[in-house]
Amino acid sequence: MPNRDNAYTQAGVNIDAGHQATELMKTAVQATYTPEVLAGLGSFGGLYDLHHVQQMKHPVLVASTDGVGTKTRVAARLNRWGSIGHDIVNHCINDILVQGARPLFFLDYVASSRLDPEQIATIVRGIATACQAAGCALLGGETAEMPGVYQDNEVDLVGTIIGVVERDQLIDGSRIEVGDVVMALPSSGLHTNGYTLARAALAEESWLDPHPDLDYPLGEVLLTPHRSYLPQIQRLQEMGIDIHGLAHITGGGLVDNLPRVLPENTAVSITPSAWTTPPIFTLIQERGQVSPAEMYRVFNMGLGMVVIVSPTQVSLMHKILGDDVLEVGHITAGKQTVTIEGIN
Amino acid sequence: MPNRDNAYTQAGVNIDAGHQATELMKTAVQATYTPEVLAGLGSFGGLYDLHHVQQMKHPVLVASTDGVGTKTRVAARLNRWGSIGHDIVNHCINDILVQGARPLFFLDYVASSRLDPEQIATIVRGIATACQAAGCALLGGETAEMPGVYQDNEVDLVGTIIGVVERDQLIDGSRIEVGDVVMALPSSGLHTNGYTLARAALAEESWLDPHPDLDYPLGEVLLTPHRSYLPQIQRLQEMGIDIHGLAHITGGGLVDNLPRVLPENTAVSITPSAWTTPPIFTLIQERGQVSPAEMYRVFNMGLGMVVIVSPTQVSLMHKILGDDVLEVGHITAGKQTVTIEGIN
Repeated sequence: MPNRDNAYTQAGVNIDAGHQATELMKTAVQATYTPEVLAGLGSFGGLYDLHHVQQMKHPVLVASTDGVGTKTRVAARLNRWGSIGHDIVNHCINDILVQGARPLFFLDYVASSRLDPEQIATIVRGIATACQAAGCALLGGETAEMPGVYQDNEVDLVGTIIGVVERDQLIDGSRIEVGDVVMALPSSGLHTNGYTLARAALAEESWLDPHPDLDYPLGEVLLTPHRSYLPQIQRLQEMGIDIHGLAHITGGGLVDNLPRVLPENTAVSITPSAWTTPPIFTLIQERGQVSPAEMYRVFNMGLGMVVIVSPTQVSLMHKILGDDVLEVGHITAGKQTVTIEGIN
Repeated sequence: MPNRDNAYTQAGVNIDAGHQATELMKTAVQATYTPEVLAGLGSFGGLYDLHHVQQMKHPVLVASTDGVGTKTRVAARLNRWGSIGHDIVNHCINDILVQGARPLFFLDYVASSRLDPEQIATIVRGIATACQAAGCALLGGETAEMPGVYQDNEVDLVGTIIGVVERDQLIDGSRIEVGDVVMALPSSGLHTNGYTLARAALAEESWLDPHPDLDYPLGEVLLTPHRSYLPQIQRLQEMGIDIHGLAHITGGGLVDNLPRVLPENTAVSITPSAWTTPPIFTLIQERGQVSPAEMYRVFNMGLGMVVIVSPTQVSLMHKILGDDVLEVGHITAGKQTVTIEGIN
């Protein structure tokens, strides 16, 4: 048998497919470059000029890595890859936003068992669009083909974001006090959490047909992108709202995420009647026969971002954001716990 | 049927396993914190104080994301998880080192179909040890359980590194010229590339027994961690070596990675007789019946880092690094191609 020149391809890795994906995503990626980007696609590392950050008094970088979880399986089932890029970017933006940071740049990682250049490029173009909307450069990324690690047709999608904040404008919850009001911005759906449970609960439903309980077919509702709260929080800050604490409601729901910003000797009381739980959550709860307490531990239940302020700020917040903000609870004395009235 | 309180666990996601893994890795992660780390484990985003970077003339951040590829499958086959954390950290360190950057901080992502807290903690402790050795803070990370996306017992491991360099000390290859010498630092093995082909070629071999062609059992040779070249490059620079270009030899080998730093109208000629190809590569080539040209396109063939310098620097480099540096080729006129003498 002669030596093989295509042994790597036969073993399951196609270097050319990677190059092809890069060509397909190039224009979208380069459209995200801000003047600070000195080198991106093709270089070993992306280069980001810190010159303007040096004008800050005392800059602090804020960094976060996250994945979209098994929301990729919803995209795979529907074979629609345009939106999960938005999910990962907006998730990461919100994760650093809660500490007061604005995004500088983002890096992505996409992996699957077999590289489909058009699919990968569609995902990365979604990432690029979401980055551009936030003024965030897509500085780097990696595409990996890993036969035998991933199941057929499955994809994992991971993002890392780097942002910056003035040290004296860091939001860390330390100024939260008893009597503060818990305001919340609605989520657009499940965002990127609880998909393993949601898919199990909804496995028997039709995902493509109009659904009696929902405004759109189930597949579409499940694929709705994670919302970015950057514009809303920026507007609140520009209008002088004094934010005591922010919590991004991700895995673990209100119950696990609020304690991350609560000072000692405070607790949260949430009034579920203050907002209407979107029907997708009710559907999951019913079909999956999930207890209300567990629903609140897994899902955001309709609230994607929590803003804790003094009562003096509430009316101005309503004026600035209108229907896009709800008063859902208040801060009590306690041991960093979250009480959902009537639930836990 | 009553409502279930453990629906999420039954659907395949165990939140407690995640918490348990975090507890197990905590001490190792916190040991990496430099004074610049203001918040890490447990906060939404990691906080890194840029105050000392502000003392620099014109700082540029260098960022890179990468995975270890299917080297995770070697770790899975041997059920040894202590070293692949070193792989991902050192790979990332080298990726930004070639542009002249020193690491500031690192973020990791570990995912599998089922969370095994002890396994995840072992991986992350490896990451932490490698970070600490490089003075790099392990600022954040994410652990994901994704049933149905990953194959059973398989893991993916992704890392993102952020480093910094003075703008006027950026290494970009632009000063490389015809007549320059191509020096190289040996690799410790396959590093993190070509594992899909290597595993296919070596599937029939015993991985645990002593091997007639190798100094150690095959499994151990395959699992040898990716080398970090930070100490060597730092020593060269401290001793005044004027580096024209650096290339980290990763996927694509010498043939694909050297052109990334070559200026127009230059090319590289490599003399394979200048070094001894480590026996692991010969074994893969023979067992897999891979052509020599493809071997050089997939593997590092024994050279992990290439340093391009003027001929005047060569003897001092030998003095500084001794046997740890080899003269393997030179820069010619040409069109950014790499010629491996007698091979391609």
